[in-house]
Amino acid sequence: MSFSFPEPGAHEALEEGLAFTPKFDRDGLIAAIVTDAKAGGVLMFAYMNADALKATIKTGFAHFWSRSRGKIWRKGETSGHEMAIVEMRVDCDQDALWLSVDVAGTGAACHTGRKSCFYRAVKTGEGALGETLAVVDDVRLFDPAKTYGG
Amino acid sequence: MSFSFPEPGAHEALEEGLAFTPKFDRDGLIAAIVTDAKAGGVLMFAYMNADALKATIKTGFAHFWSRSRGKIWRKGETSGHEMAIVEMRVDCDQDALWLSVDVAGTGAACHTGRKSCFYRAVKTGEGALGETLAVVDDVRLFDPAKTYGG
Repeated sequence: MSFSFPEPGAHEALEEGLAFTPKFDRDGLIAAIVTDAKAGGVLMFAYMNADALKATIKTGFAHFWSRSRGKIWRKGETSGHEMAIVEMRVDCDQDALWLSVDVAGTGAACHTGRKSCFYRAVKTGEGALGETLAVVDDVRLFDPAKTYGG
Repeated sequence: MSFSFPEPGAHEALEEGLAFTPKFDRDGLIAAIVTDAKAGGVLMFAYMNADALKATIKTGFAHFWSRSRGKIWRKGETSGHEMAIVEMRVDCDQDALWLSVDVAGTGAACHTGRKSCFYRAVKTGEGALGETLAVVDDVRLFDPAKTYGG
């Protein structure tokens, strides 16, 4: 793809301008938060490189950069849980994206089979440091061993 | 603070265990997504180092690491928009946090005076590559020049 995103401008342009100039980090990545368009709530957090972002914009389906596998990945390509973008937003300094999506199939976003990757709570408040996590969602919408050939 | 978070364990423990073993990146940071506990929606995205995370857990108020200022920052310490944690969660591989919060004062999370840092939409679909951003929220809940002495 020959298109390149413009270089980020100065402070004012970055925050108040209408030019989309995503700021990639030194690894060429930008943070991407994914929430459920219907129910709200954070489903997952991942990174995109420029090509994954371009593919996401062009197709309307979420693509990410897999740091562990070192390749672009169309979310749901194996599991069928594709993510259709309902709305994508960028933050004030253009170094983070928020994707509000409809998840296909069972609606699960997490490779563990759960709806959201955020299924454990961290306790807070006095005496909470060092406490164990609390499971807040243990429903598996699919069996990862079957889907990914575990 | 003498407490140290345990080192991340192997795959199974990380994803299915109840030990909180946050995975900090090579800069010692972990991603933190902040959503509005009442209205839903993403308010901001930032990073914590271990001390900011410890302070967040102990006090129940969001603390971040400011990469630009190189210091821990209690969100709202200048503007009064403190963030009380309603719930904090960690994701499957324990390298991202989701904080659901109540924002004090005007309820604004963004230093530009807007409620959310995500006030501009990125168009998607055929022909959308290279298009300008669309402003989806331009309401200023406070005047940054007055609050931060602009």
